[in-house]
Amino acid sequence: MGSRRATDEDPDEAFVIAAASGVTGRLPVGLGIGDDAAILEGGQVVSTDTMVEGVHWDQRLEPGDVGWKLVAVNVSDIGAMGGRPRWATLAMALPSPLDRGWVTAFFEGFAAASRRFGLPLVGGDTTRSPGPRVLTLTVGGHAGAPVRRDGARAGDDVWVTGELGRAAEAFGSTSPSPSAMAWFRRPEPPISFGAALAEAGLAHAMIDVSDGLARDLGRLCRASGVGASVDPALLPGGRPLPDAIAFGEDYELCFAATPGAQSAICSLASMHGIVVTRVGAFTSTPELRLLGHLGWPPPQFDHFVSEPR
Amino acid sequence: MGSRRATDEDPDEAFVIAAASGVTGRLPVGLGIGDDAAILEGGQVVSTDTMVEGVHWDQRLEPGDVGWKLVAVNVSDIGAMGGRPRWATLAMALPSPLDRGWVTAFFEGFAAASRRFGLPLVGGDTTRSPGPRVLTLTVGGHAGAPVRRDGARAGDDVWVTGELGRAAEAFGSTSPSPSAMAWFRRPEPPISFGAALAEAGLAHAMIDVSDGLARDLGRLCRASGVGASVDPALLPGGRPLPDAIAFGEDYELCFAATPGAQSAICSLASMHGIVVTRVGAFTSTPELRLLGHLGWPPPQFDHFVSEPR
Repeated sequence: MGSRRATDEDPDEAFVIAAASGVTGRLPVGLGIGDDAAILEGGQVVSTDTMVEGVHWDQRLEPGDVGWKLVAVNVSDIGAMGGRPRWATLAMALPSPLDRGWVTAFFEGFAAASRRFGLPLVGGDTTRSPGPRVLTLTVGGHAGAPVRRDGARAGDDVWVTGELGRAAEAFGSTSPSPSAMAWFRRPEPPISFGAALAEAGLAHAMIDVSDGLARDLGRLCRASGVGASVDPALLPGGRPLPDAIAFGEDYELCFAATPGAQSAICSLASMHGIVVTRVGAFTSTPELRLLGHLGWPPPQFDHFVSEPR
Repeated sequence: MGSRRATDEDPDEAFVIAAASGVTGRLPVGLGIGDDAAILEGGQVVSTDTMVEGVHWDQRLEPGDVGWKLVAVNVSDIGAMGGRPRWATLAMALPSPLDRGWVTAFFEGFAAASRRFGLPLVGGDTTRSPGPRVLTLTVGGHAGAPVRRDGARAGDDVWVTGELGRAAEAFGSTSPSPSAMAWFRRPEPPISFGAALAEAGLAHAMIDVSDGLARDLGRLCRASGVGASVDPALLPGGRPLPDAIAFGEDYELCFAATPGAQSAICSLASMHGIVVTRVGAFTSTPELRLLGHLGWPPPQFDHFVSEPR
């Protein structure tokens, strides 16, 4: 298993969110639960992600990889709002006796990601836990022009950054490529590009691809009240369709932009050393269509749903 | 057990903090780890606390009490900086199958505390855990005039709010008073008073009393490079000395102020309906003294240290 959050389609998570609605319903500040990150006053954005050992990672990841991914998963959420990460707090529940070697190795990767994404750790809490390691990172950032999920319009292009399916290859292939393994262990979400795209006003809506394009593009479409038609031949990476759209852990961006913005988007991506690919278009019919296929394939697996009940 | 954080004297936590120093050492923003909350740019303050079932609470607390305390413990940290809480994110690792009754009851208390302290929940993450419930709340706030731990001066008065030892009474007495039980289950840290005190420039240094006055006043003294002399006869609440200074979970404020500020402090406290008591004075000798006693009694117990290694 790699890092995978519970999905908002999960009935248990939906129950928790509904139970919390008495608290979230009174939000005096901006958009909250339901986007990649909450937008607060003054362009602040904040995101929280938890990784549980045995649920979100196993021995496929070294402790340093876990440290890196905990940072990357969170900054990916900030980047998907068009934000730039500014600070983080880390809460660690660790078994006793403390495995100091694990802690040291974890912080090697955490520090490397912190440097890579310019994210200082400003506070935290360490507690002992009789259960598995539970790690929660909260990242705050700033978005001068926050991009939400709900702004896609029929006729907009569907864009994705990078490649899709690298984590699927690393996870499922008997001989994964080194680059796929590297991305699976230490993904590098295109944060600066996401922020630049937002600041240039080029994206109508944006989401990070953490649970697979099928699921995440579906979320963006639902929030925007539109559908999308995607051409599988255009999906970047050339991997089998289930890997490309239904596995997850891509930590790339999917965004909506007017067709007239194509050359501006390509120039900006080039400046940031990012590959961008137009994979389809948003439609007024509120459904997801894959050209040449009937319906989307179901998610290959889902840690949260597939566990025994 | 009630809610108790690992202490900064714990060797394991010290190891984790040292391992993290490669990340925290590069802080481009304000004061970070080592105070009640981190101070960021623009007067932002942020605090994170984790509660682990079986470590920080047991059956003495109802699920709703756990929800309340998770909020109260965090806002107490924000209040101790002279800040006012503004938003919170909640990460919950919950066993499967989901106990929906527990979730509903938890959010009753969480929502009540959220209303009491004016703290909207803006985001979160729910994950499944094979271990105990692990709850992490991150609270952001604003402090126009942040008060740190390191500003106490020899000659300043030592002040505390409220009563000390209520949680100790609730935890240890065979017939605790209803008011002690109520504070143990649903403490109400004096946040508004703390912020008003800071904004009026009346406190040189401040800390919340979460681990007992002995330990927390000790931290404030170390940070300030001073000592303190406390008169046990002045400790508010009239409880046995170990309960009053060495148990913890008081969630009151301890602060340093110049003797000339006494009447201003009492007036402000009265306006906020808060009882304040001058319990001693800061001294230039860097040691804690209890009048009539040799040394401070050791902490009555410490969840983190006392567990089998």
